Amino acid sequence: MAAWGELLAGVRGVLLDISGVLYDGGEGGGAAIAGSVEAVARLKRSRLKVRFCTNESQKSRADLVGLLQRLGFDVSESEVTAPAPAACLILKQRGLRPHLLVHDGVRSEFDHIDTSNPNCVVIADAGEDFSYRNMNKAFQVLMELENPVLFSLGKGRYYKETSGLMLDVGPYMKALEYACGIEAEVVGKPSPEFFKSALQEMGVEAHEAIMIGDDIVGDVGGAQRYGMRALQVRTGKFRPSDEHHPEVKADGYVDNLAEAVDLLLQHANK
Amino acid sequence: MAAWGELLAGVRGVLLDISGVLYDGGEGGGAAIAGSVEAVARLKRSRLKVRFCTNESQKSRADLVGLLQRLGFDVSESEVTAPAPAACLILKQRGLRPHLLVHDGVRSEFDHIDTSNPNCVVIADAGEDFSYRNMNKAFQVLMELENPVLFSLGKGRYYKETSGLMLDVGPYMKALEYACGIEAEVVGKPSPEFFKSALQEMGVEAHEAIMIGDDIVGDVGGAQRYGMRALQVRTGKFRPSDEHHPEVKADGYVDNLAEAVDLLLQHANK
Repeated sequence: MAAWGELLAGVRGVLLDISGVLYDGGEGGGAAIAGSVEAVARLKRSRLKVRFCTNESQKSRADLVGLLQRLGFDVSESEVTAPAPAACLILKQRGLRPHLLVHDGVRSEFDHIDTSNPNCVVIADAGEDFSYRNMNKAFQVLMELENPVLFSLGKGRYYKETSGLMLDVGPYMKALEYACGIEAEVVGKPSPEFFKSALQEMGVEAHEAIMIGDDIVGDVGGAQRYGMRALQVRTGKFRPSDEHHPEVKADGYVDNLAEAVDLLLQHANK
Repeated sequence: MAAWGELLAGVRGVLLDISGVLYDGGEGGGAAIAGSVEAVARLKRSRLKVRFCTNESQKSRADLVGLLQRLGFDVSESEVTAPAPAACLILKQRGLRPHLLVHDGVRSEFDHIDTSNPNCVVIADAGEDFSYRNMNKAFQVLMELENPVLFSLGKGRYYKETSGLMLDVGPYMKALEYACGIEAEVVGKPSPEFFKSALQEMGVEAHEAIMIGDDIVGDVGGAQRYGMRALQVRTGKFRPSDEHHPEVKADGYVDNLAEAVDLLLQHANK
């Protein structure tokens, strides 16, 4: 691995993944990852720009930010780039009316979207709502469309809760793709459009930005393909085999967000 | 399409798919497809050998045969090749202990299989039992294995019930493959081993046999790759677009099993 000074030179903005970097979800909302509350606070006191870039699609942005604030994080709704609001924008631009297979917690994000007589399907991390009945309904809606359009809010394989690994939306996206013989449009990481809007909102160019995440493909691979640097933390869904991933190599691996922030404050923006 | 006489010359044995060819499942067990009861009877009175080759994995063979008999079909358990008994044979041969994600209706087929301390996962068409909780459990079992082994009883995309199209096991197989980064072993059509055992049980070589099914990929494509001829019926899950499938072309398309049997009795085994 190259020296950190070289790796982090010129970084002006930091995109932070939330789940698995700031906290692990679970019973009673979850738990902050040790050192992360203080790490975010230090980062925000620095000259670096900070933005949160999440694929969280079970909760509305308001609920997610409320939870993070209760866990002690300094974060506001306007600092968060999340897939549900991005999807609503696309639906409006293209005049699409979705059938929603989403968790009740995120449904309010779609309050102003016309869902009558659907001409597309939107799936998000629906958790327990990924029942056979709900999956079959989404499948039937798609099969009845002449040009089936499926949006998936992220395509993560799984995430980590305090109780263990949990299936994310990606496997269910793959299930519907196979069942219908189609390819989904991903809204969220690793989609280039999603990184683009997060960077625009932060006001930083890709080559000046670094992504910090626990997902070697969605966070690290996606950010790198968009021209950013990326660090993987060894928290959340990180597995040792990620450091030997056949396709993606992070610019650096750190034990947790606290270590990443130590390094950034020492070496970035020089 | 070549003349039927040429297409069917030399056929000595017929493999019949069950769901979508003999009957459509649904409320109260389902309904026989018009003409199929009589067509099976005529076939069995002929000089042609007949065997039933199904991917049905929601019901035990005994329950399936009981249902077909109640619908009027002349069929016995010993005439049916089905994936659950084939899977049990493989599990025993390889000393594997499965975690089962299967419908209660087929569980009895696994009564004599050791399921303690599982070192593989078997999924079948579990219907409503494809809950998030059950899928997540299967996922967690696989992720804890050093060499995760997943068996899928068939890989059909969907099937047709009297009430509409229903997701089959294939999409859920794809979901677990993606979540775990593995490839499943398919037990059932279109696996060559499965056609091989059905043909052996019928005592007919592949080039002397014809498959009749409603699934362009699983029935028709699978049988052709194994060296058999194959007809697709326009019943069950058949869709007009199947006749222009990008990869598979049936040797012939018929409206239903009755028409297939008319043609076979006229042209085969000459």
